[in-house]
Amino acid sequence: MSRRVDAAGAAELLRGLKEVGVLIHRRPDGDAVGSAFALRQALGALGIRCRVLCPDPIPEKFSFLAGGGEEEFQPLCYVAVDLASAGMAGEFEQRAKGCLLCVDHHLSNEQYAENLLLDPQAASCCELLLPVIKAMGVPLTPFIATALYTGAATDTGCFLFRNTTAATHLAAAELMAAGADAALVNQRFFEQKSRSRLALELMVYESLEFYLGGRVAVATITEDMIKRSGATAGDLEGINGLARGIEGVEVGVTLREGPGGVCRASLRSNRVDSSAVCRVFGGGGHQGAAGFECTGEFADIKALLLRELEKRL
Amino acid sequence: MSRRVDAAGAAELLRGLKEVGVLIHRRPDGDAVGSAFALRQALGALGIRCRVLCPDPIPEKFSFLAGGGEEEFQPLCYVAVDLASAGMAGEFEQRAKGCLLCVDHHLSNEQYAENLLLDPQAASCCELLLPVIKAMGVPLTPFIATALYTGAATDTGCFLFRNTTAATHLAAAELMAAGADAALVNQRFFEQKSRSRLALELMVYESLEFYLGGRVAVATITEDMIKRSGATAGDLEGINGLARGIEGVEVGVTLREGPGGVCRASLRSNRVDSSAVCRVFGGGGHQGAAGFECTGEFADIKALLLRELEKRL
Repeated sequence: MSRRVDAAGAAELLRGLKEVGVLIHRRPDGDAVGSAFALRQALGALGIRCRVLCPDPIPEKFSFLAGGGEEEFQPLCYVAVDLASAGMAGEFEQRAKGCLLCVDHHLSNEQYAENLLLDPQAASCCELLLPVIKAMGVPLTPFIATALYTGAATDTGCFLFRNTTAATHLAAAELMAAGADAALVNQRFFEQKSRSRLALELMVYESLEFYLGGRVAVATITEDMIKRSGATAGDLEGINGLARGIEGVEVGVTLREGPGGVCRASLRSNRVDSSAVCRVFGGGGHQGAAGFECTGEFADIKALLLRELEKRL
Repeated sequence: MSRRVDAAGAAELLRGLKEVGVLIHRRPDGDAVGSAFALRQALGALGIRCRVLCPDPIPEKFSFLAGGGEEEFQPLCYVAVDLASAGMAGEFEQRAKGCLLCVDHHLSNEQYAENLLLDPQAASCCELLLPVIKAMGVPLTPFIATALYTGAATDTGCFLFRNTTAATHLAAAELMAAGADAALVNQRFFEQKSRSRLALELMVYESLEFYLGGRVAVATITEDMIKRSGATAGDLEGINGLARGIEGVEVGVTLREGPGGVCRASLRSNRVDSSAVCRVFGGGGHQGAAGFECTGEFADIKALLLRELEKRL
């Protein structure tokens, strides 16, 4: 069990450091990257040597935060941001275990750190980090503000998802006033889609089938569709959410053809427990979003899934 | 020329009324409807008789604001919200001319009202109306907060567009704290789309043509497309933003066929001054979003527009 600290307590711990490695989770998203690089600059402003350690490469789309590379050194001390479990730090798992401090907003945080600032009400780790950085006595530079805005915006689908609270908007207001380049972040993550993504979306929409009175929508994504659209790995991000985005749809199902005839099924719902449904097929996930993999004809998988959904709707 | 007033001045004028008709623009959007019905409830709280007058029916998707119908009476006095010109009040144009007060955020406001609260920096009229309602001494009820949130969210594409400022987020924070049902508004306007909207979007995407090296995208919406998709007035909201949402596109143009062979052109851009371009064709609007109406062949209008855009890109 971690000792719980508040923003002032976390700031005090951070101010006392000489050098530190900041740990984030594998397959890093906007909140992880934004948190880590905001913190790195804040620590740097206090003369604290700092490097960010992530088990996976930081995706190109975060180059405006992570550019410039990392100083190579072996830190004496570690802190973790947006990291729910030590295992998600991948090769840095042992550094995460018992690290000095973790700042996180996941209810499922496994309390692997010595000290923990946890607020599951915070929509993003960046939202939670803002008062910490202020308590460190570091001025909110445009870079720090942009980094924190990145997490605040991406973890809420640009202030759309239900985790968005008044506090989220207050933080966004403060960050924009401090010079956050919201236009750059929004453009990169929300305003525009690539032509290949659009081409794929159109095919996915064309593939939609509606069942159970329109309450279930099933989208199909074949390897051929991905090839014809020219979609990259980045273009596939969030594609499983399309089926759920149609009025009246309570369960969005996406069946995606993988290599070797594998079918990757994904469920999205606010009505049924997606995780429970997917466990029936040997998969799992969260209540709102879950998945499983199997082999077989798509038509058969669909029929089995619909039978399972009919019981629960 | 209107006499300029601030929020306190506007509130004082409103508090002095006995009965009033609130005028909004034709083809009302979330900002117009949100502003009008927030103001109606605020006036009602002060015992002021009020009705909303719109030349077009209020779309069904605003039923959570506009439900319950209007009291039928001939008001002694008129105020306008989100109404840039008297002409946009349609059949109520004469009532708009010289009306007591206009609260608006359009730079192009034609100053037709006796008193004017104008702030082109405000992302929405609702954002601008919030301090007015507070200055009226009316408590921010959940209904008023939801109505104002509707305009704040819909006029910014859920805090995405570049008109979003720190003040916009501050207003959203205050409205959510006051009980705005952001989940209801976001679900209705951003999370899910109707099947008819989807059908129309697919046709609009299919219609896209790219010019000037992909920097300009032109979408075409015909009356036949609207008919075939089954799109309602509500389904058309924001449809003019699709063309701009493709990677590399700096100007999104939408040409929409109106009744009687009229062409309604809409421009969206962060690169050129949309309003300046549209003024060339007798229209107007904001820097990022503007429009004009004309008659003629779509191909000719497109050619003229592209020539104008080429000069500026």
